[in-house]
Amino acid sequence: MKNLKNDLYLRALRGEKVERTPIWVMRQAGRYLPEYRATRKQAGDFLTLCKTPELACEVTMQPIDRFGLDAAILFSDILTIPDAMGLELVLEEGIGPVFNKPIRSQGDIDALGVPDAEQDLGYVMNAIRVIRGALDGRVPLIGFTGSPWTLASYMVEGSGSKEFRRIKGLMFESPESAHQLLQIVTDSVIQYLKAQVAAGAQSLMVFDTWGGMLSTQNYQTFSLAYMQQIVSAIKNDEACNGVPIVLFTKGGGQWLESMADTGCDGLGLDWTVDISSAKQRVGDRVVLQGNMDPVVMNTSQQQVADHALEVLHGYGQHQAQDKGHIFNLGHGIQPFAKPENMQALVETVQQQSGQFHE
Amino acid sequence: MKNLKNDLYLRALRGEKVERTPIWVMRQAGRYLPEYRATRKQAGDFLTLCKTPELACEVTMQPIDRFGLDAAILFSDILTIPDAMGLELVLEEGIGPVFNKPIRSQGDIDALGVPDAEQDLGYVMNAIRVIRGALDGRVPLIGFTGSPWTLASYMVEGSGSKEFRRIKGLMFESPESAHQLLQIVTDSVIQYLKAQVAAGAQSLMVFDTWGGMLSTQNYQTFSLAYMQQIVSAIKNDEACNGVPIVLFTKGGGQWLESMADTGCDGLGLDWTVDISSAKQRVGDRVVLQGNMDPVVMNTSQQQVADHALEVLHGYGQHQAQDKGHIFNLGHGIQPFAKPENMQALVETVQQQSGQFHE
Repeated sequence: MKNLKNDLYLRALRGEKVERTPIWVMRQAGRYLPEYRATRKQAGDFLTLCKTPELACEVTMQPIDRFGLDAAILFSDILTIPDAMGLELVLEEGIGPVFNKPIRSQGDIDALGVPDAEQDLGYVMNAIRVIRGALDGRVPLIGFTGSPWTLASYMVEGSGSKEFRRIKGLMFESPESAHQLLQIVTDSVIQYLKAQVAAGAQSLMVFDTWGGMLSTQNYQTFSLAYMQQIVSAIKNDEACNGVPIVLFTKGGGQWLESMADTGCDGLGLDWTVDISSAKQRVGDRVVLQGNMDPVVMNTSQQQVADHALEVLHGYGQHQAQDKGHIFNLGHGIQPFAKPENMQALVETVQQQSGQFHE
Repeated sequence: MKNLKNDLYLRALRGEKVERTPIWVMRQAGRYLPEYRATRKQAGDFLTLCKTPELACEVTMQPIDRFGLDAAILFSDILTIPDAMGLELVLEEGIGPVFNKPIRSQGDIDALGVPDAEQDLGYVMNAIRVIRGALDGRVPLIGFTGSPWTLASYMVEGSGSKEFRRIKGLMFESPESAHQLLQIVTDSVIQYLKAQVAAGAQSLMVFDTWGGMLSTQNYQTFSLAYMQQIVSAIKNDEACNGVPIVLFTKGGGQWLESMADTGCDGLGLDWTVDISSAKQRVGDRVVLQGNMDPVVMNTSQQQVADHALEVLHGYGQHQAQDKGHIFNLGHGIQPFAKPENMQALVETVQQQSGQFHE
């Protein structure tokens, strides 16, 4: 860590005073970049790209090289754990993830085991090692996982869903089975994240893509309680000492207080959340990460600059009691975003955020 | 109005003390009912069902006859206005709404006119008249509209959407054009709702299906501001005197305070909102309508009863300062819901809610 040339992101996540707002972007290594599409084509399919450390490293580095972002994020997929559990992930662009062997019975849940992170998910750890080598201390590397609720949703639905009737059916009708499933996924996530840190991840993020589909009470019981376990496990692990962890629940704007209660270091905000209200609600307890509407990235450089400044103004001046702000979009950058808009975004934030840190 | 046999819903919406919690269910006339599917088959297609007043009346009455709900809602679609504007709505089950002639240019916006509610949307007004006759004062009839933002989204996207890049592109890059479009839709909605009241609608509801896809600030400017115009127009219209109006933004749980500021009578809550917190935030200003997770309707009668009681307990005792609660789901009942679960829901609420009104 002492060799990091740009440690702005980590210092900001620790709540330290920084000279400007750091920026990285969810899905910054993605289809909007022509060089990503070229590597993706070379790999043949998305999962091969994830599972080939050199190629995963190549696409991880592309947005760092092109835009000078303040953090790199491991190129991988949130569904690696269920895949390693034997559900056989198939990722086809335009269709979304599908499991060949989804969870369809209590027997399927009983049969699940915690994958060995180095044995069964070694390609992820190898990717982290290769990326750390390639980064050579330029910026920190973020490791990540899907949240237990999100992973369980995909495992039970067998794919993405609109109504989530299968996983919610399990939750409503067989809550013990749902908890059994969530617990084994949580145990797996904890081992997975610890292995990521051991391999070189310098910060962690939990993507709770589907927690926002739950009622407030079910969110607490079936999603947040398991993210709490993850935060506690990482915080109580000596080997993870000082590795910050960020929680992001898409559609979770109503629940920021209880998310902050987990003791995590930061909260990702989707674009529906007013960052200035969020700062008032939890800004003295956690760093806030976000939250420009990703669709702006499809418009003009002027629009991008204007909206980025709006978010910076929304967070406002960093006062002593504030934990701070890390710039990001409110969700992943989309395939139709323009690379030159990403350039405008990074320049705006890096050149103009200093005024909010005086 | 004086001839209503069951005016519980209207009294509750006026904030009067009632003996128990009234219940109706969004999309209560829908595919989960075998008798609905039979009428729908007879009609041939969904739009013919909407456009044939006798058939629209038949399906409107079905859940009233079967379950004894406390309000009927006009059977129609939220996209009737753009259809009447000439965009040519096509509704195919399983695909969702599509416009043959979506808005694709400034010229398309300039060419839009306000449809004459009696002339161009006469089938809706006729359906209301026929339904009022069939209801014969059993329960009140709810009229409705899509919100201007939701209608404009469909008009510009040409169909449903996940990212809303077209309408958001218009909003970000040509806000004047977006406002021009939203204003003509709003003018149309106001005329449409007034005509519904003239035809016999006794209560009104605005469905803002896509407002929750906006940032807080854009929600205020591009969705809520236009719903405010609608509320004001209805409240200031003598002919609409005493007709309550309810706003429902799916995903709008963060914005209840500003929604209540419009002066509407009630707010629909989606299932993600904690109704007890919502009551604390705005319950002395507006009636709250909702908000059980619709997926529960696919489980067992016991589950339905338990969850219904949870919502009733969540709202809790009706105190003098509370405007009150109307039971509903947090979104439309889904095709896979079981009719016997609807029976259990209605019985639970009607038989057990009295204890919260002592």
